[in-house]
Amino acid sequence: MGKKIVIALGGNALGNNLPEQMVAVKKTAKTIADLVQQGHQVIISHGNGPQVGMIQNAMAEFSRTHGEPMAPLSVCVAMSQGYIGYDLQNALREELLERGIPKPVSTVLTQVRVDPQDPAFAKPTKPIGPFMTREEAEELAREKGYTVMEDAGRGYRRVVASPKPVEIIEIETVKDLLNAGQIVIAAGGGGIPVIAEGHHLKGVGAVIDKDFASSRMAQMLDADCLIILTAVEKVAIRFGKPDQQWLDEISPEDAQRYIQEGHFAPGSMLPKVQAALDFAQSAPGRYALITLLEKASDGIQGRTGTVIRG
Amino acid sequence: MGKKIVIALGGNALGNNLPEQMVAVKKTAKTIADLVQQGHQVIISHGNGPQVGMIQNAMAEFSRTHGEPMAPLSVCVAMSQGYIGYDLQNALREELLERGIPKPVSTVLTQVRVDPQDPAFAKPTKPIGPFMTREEAEELAREKGYTVMEDAGRGYRRVVASPKPVEIIEIETVKDLLNAGQIVIAAGGGGIPVIAEGHHLKGVGAVIDKDFASSRMAQMLDADCLIILTAVEKVAIRFGKPDQQWLDEISPEDAQRYIQEGHFAPGSMLPKVQAALDFAQSAPGRYALITLLEKASDGIQGRTGTVIRG
Repeated sequence: MGKKIVIALGGNALGNNLPEQMVAVKKTAKTIADLVQQGHQVIISHGNGPQVGMIQNAMAEFSRTHGEPMAPLSVCVAMSQGYIGYDLQNALREELLERGIPKPVSTVLTQVRVDPQDPAFAKPTKPIGPFMTREEAEELAREKGYTVMEDAGRGYRRVVASPKPVEIIEIETVKDLLNAGQIVIAAGGGGIPVIAEGHHLKGVGAVIDKDFASSRMAQMLDADCLIILTAVEKVAIRFGKPDQQWLDEISPEDAQRYIQEGHFAPGSMLPKVQAALDFAQSAPGRYALITLLEKASDGIQGRTGTVIRG
Repeated sequence: MGKKIVIALGGNALGNNLPEQMVAVKKTAKTIADLVQQGHQVIISHGNGPQVGMIQNAMAEFSRTHGEPMAPLSVCVAMSQGYIGYDLQNALREELLERGIPKPVSTVLTQVRVDPQDPAFAKPTKPIGPFMTREEAEELAREKGYTVMEDAGRGYRRVVASPKPVEIIEIETVKDLLNAGQIVIAAGGGGIPVIAEGHHLKGVGAVIDKDFASSRMAQMLDADCLIILTAVEKVAIRFGKPDQQWLDEISPEDAQRYIQEGHFAPGSMLPKVQAALDFAQSAPGRYALITLLEKASDGIQGRTGTVIRG
């Protein structure tokens, strides 16, 4: 029977620049089309690290050179959703048509509300934008209130917070399109981060982890399954050590314990396991799968990957 | 009784840069909210001239400076839909909430198919991107096959074609969202221009006139009315001359005659009148209205603007 599945695509599903993206999305499209062909309802989210970095750099340099107003990070995320969604939806549309499935695929500009009191704002950790000299960095910190940090001797960069997603603003849009039988690309790059000030949504200089945003979206859509696609087929404990162990299934209790024991690298497997766990525990019957892009179809049939059930 | 209305926003509804945009969309939102409050179903399209120009310039300079792959014009249009849609949908969402109307507003990434045999491709006319020296322009023409042209002594620029829109690719998405009671922003900047090669959609280096794209979208949505908002309250013949005459209504026959007599400036009022005429004549009962942004509500109630009925 068909499931409602949110798929979170990692960087390898998109490539690092436009030519790479155009090749990568073809392979990604095959994986997603397999799931659609098996009768599943599919919602796709994706990262945007290299893309938004490039856009932010290009816009920052242009603003510096031409005295143009700077495009805030939130606007750059909005642009990256267009940049990626365009290729991704076309590759998927084409793959489906080749298989005789004329299902519309659409990209929804998506904002994600965060909490201005999120402790992440007190401790920005994500480097973003171009490298700068110390003087440039200090000027930016003074003028714009940015947090800047030296990055491994390569110069200074702006660092931003990575707050937790609270709410997908366009969730009704995603639901309406799903109900109409569409395939939807949403919450690209973790979504455009906004805070609510009364009825006003204000963009914030932050980036939202795409796995957390996908988990939140999957919860709000009452999805059956969250698939987090990454560079390994399964999650391992003692990763890279002689006694490394690949895991087929992790209970929520074990997941908590492994997290506390530091088995998963921050900024890499840790947010994936946490996002998966959040989703699996959010309601009875929900489960998350972490695996390779090309193993998604096998994984959903229970043949590989790492599963976390609530 | 509520009508289905496609509103094409002109440049003055959006401003020329980001700070201007954030102010302009607030005023634009009031106009659109008036129509929503009167019970109309609203679909919004908009231009993107200054925005896509800036994005294209920023991306081109970045690619030159860093040896990065160049973002094609179609990708820049996709980015501009995010850049503009984000502010526009939030301003409208906020204005509606202030009035106690919790209607979702969404931005749909929109592609518009053009005909590769469109005669416009043989005669590119729209300057786009940064100014270049003659040497740079000739190199680009040689390497990329671009058409370049000297622009009023200020240097050389790339010129692209402005082909006619044939089909809105994401029309089902717009329909599904309308049916669900949403307000939809679509075909921004005239849409991302694509040609079909079998099942593949390929971006082309062109720009589609937003009034023509809006007219095409209004036809495909079976809209009752197309409103083209511009910088004048009414259309005039003998514009700017002593015997200038403002028009309340133009019959299709008169419109054709005025066009032939050269009353409307190419690239300005001419495409608006043509797009309005196309829509009005596409099926019985359809009509188009050309007026000022702040007069849209009066216009739809028959109190001002220029109307063309089929």
